[in-house]
Amino acid sequence: MVTIQMIDDAAKRIQEHITETPLIRARALDEALGCRVYLKLENMQITGSFKFRGAMNKILKMSSRDKEKGIITASSGNHGKAVAYAAKSLGIKATVVVPDTASPFKVHSIEQYGADIIKCNVSERFTISEELAEKHGYTLLHPYDDADIMAGQGTVGSEIINASPNIDKIIVPTSGGGLLGGILSAVKPVMENIKVYGAEPASVPRYTVSLKAGERKKVEDQHTLADALVTNQPGIENFPVIQKHADGMLNVQEEMLLSATRLMLMEGKILAEPSGCIGIAAILSKQLKVNADDDICFVISGGNAGDALLKQLESL
Amino acid sequence: MVTIQMIDDAAKRIQEHITETPLIRARALDEALGCRVYLKLENMQITGSFKFRGAMNKILKMSSRDKEKGIITASSGNHGKAVAYAAKSLGIKATVVVPDTASPFKVHSIEQYGADIIKCNVSERFTISEELAEKHGYTLLHPYDDADIMAGQGTVGSEIINASPNIDKIIVPTSGGGLLGGILSAVKPVMENIKVYGAEPASVPRYTVSLKAGERKKVEDQHTLADALVTNQPGIENFPVIQKHADGMLNVQEEMLLSATRLMLMEGKILAEPSGCIGIAAILSKQLKVNADDDICFVISGGNAGDALLKQLESL
Repeated sequence: MVTIQMIDDAAKRIQEHITETPLIRARALDEALGCRVYLKLENMQITGSFKFRGAMNKILKMSSRDKEKGIITASSGNHGKAVAYAAKSLGIKATVVVPDTASPFKVHSIEQYGADIIKCNVSERFTISEELAEKHGYTLLHPYDDADIMAGQGTVGSEIINASPNIDKIIVPTSGGGLLGGILSAVKPVMENIKVYGAEPASVPRYTVSLKAGERKKVEDQHTLADALVTNQPGIENFPVIQKHADGMLNVQEEMLLSATRLMLMEGKILAEPSGCIGIAAILSKQLKVNADDDICFVISGGNAGDALLKQLESL
Repeated sequence: MVTIQMIDDAAKRIQEHITETPLIRARALDEALGCRVYLKLENMQITGSFKFRGAMNKILKMSSRDKEKGIITASSGNHGKAVAYAAKSLGIKATVVVPDTASPFKVHSIEQYGADIIKCNVSERFTISEELAEKHGYTLLHPYDDADIMAGQGTVGSEIINASPNIDKIIVPTSGGGLLGGILSAVKPVMENIKVYGAEPASVPRYTVSLKAGERKKVEDQHTLADALVTNQPGIENFPVIQKHADGMLNVQEEMLLSATRLMLMEGKILAEPSGCIGIAAILSKQLKVNADDDICFVISGGNAGDALLKQLESL
């Protein structure tokens, strides 16, 4: 359970470290999406994604003794980058376990922040990080299945309602459920009538399947262009919050992701990674009925995009 | 002379037609630029540039009789697009005289808005538009050398100081001087201590040369990647305002423009055209000494960029 108090405390704790990202009105996207569009730009967060909020909250809460020992995580993506940078800026030793499938682009930015990198087979990454945590006394930072991580991500939600209390709906990119669970925990107790939806890739429908089944189901690992949304099972801490409070889970077909990312870039003038544009893709593919006078906030969860993505967008 | 009253009136007149564009704090750019970075995102203005403000103000001030006759302008770029769209949305006939050197990409977007296009040799475009204005009773909309146009552009300045009165410096892309003149007219009478600088391409240094000479000088026509900043002489209405109030004119070498545009995209997550990034380029090339605690607002004047630009940025 993540309470409003935990989120308020997280907000105070991380305030001087994070960026309060812009929440902008993006009128240029209204026509294409059929509603009044707002964007919460977590692609402009430090390290390029919302992940920095949760990582910072978790690390700042650790005891001095644990901080001295160091931290470890198993993620080659935005969480890994966030953990590495948070550790560096607080002077804490960080180890990041990286699967050999990770892109050199992402591994490079984790290395840049001075984290120790341990490469391994993709299936071994969690075992290895647990073993190392035990052996060296490192604190293991889970990317989503942790109340402090969720509370940190929840500050995105409180910033949205503080800046724009007139929002009708919020659409949140969803993988393990840290961001969506956090935002629901921040928004629903305060502004019950704001509808909050998750959006996940149809190719890895862990929440769609689990919500239908009424329990946490594991789905098949699949490649998706939304490479930050590949978790194959809802988190233990996250699932009950989402099950109780989410107003729906939107399912997004692969082919819409690139169009949405291009629309964001060429019309919205915002560079975001495809995972961050999945909410836009959901509306483009009519997964949710919207009205012209609906004020809808899309959480643009990340912007870690390289030249390869530009090339893909261009040839569209 | 453009007074504060004229700018306030313009702001009220155009309010329901334009977008109040975001003014964002872009912390991701602080390190590269050596100051606290703010961006006024006129690349998100309707039609993709600030030009829509001045065009709308000018057209809304016309008499009903003149509106019935129609308007004409000679511009293949952002001003042409702004005029065409403003006319369309107000139900007024517009003619845009386009030089045969104009890019098909830009001509296409002017056509899309339903304006009549007249193609001609680049050197004849002003003569032809004047002749047609006289013949048909069209009102000629100058891109910058007009008090109502300048007052419209000045609303960018009043929005900046209303949203962020703590700004120390504002840097403004400069061509004929409509935007810089307007912003100076809005800012200087109210917040005298905010420094306001222009930035122009070193290849077409019409203001640098004219300010030094103390009078409006014509410079050689030159190609520049900043294709919205190619006017070869300061405007009659604009020059005295800039001469009196501007705190400096920054000269930007061609080779910095693309780096600045790429920095804005990959680090800032904002797509802007090179002309709009010229202030960023000026700081990158150390044309102005800045301090780490300076709050500097860069006016990102336009974002009309196509796939050709993406390709250029990618290969950088």
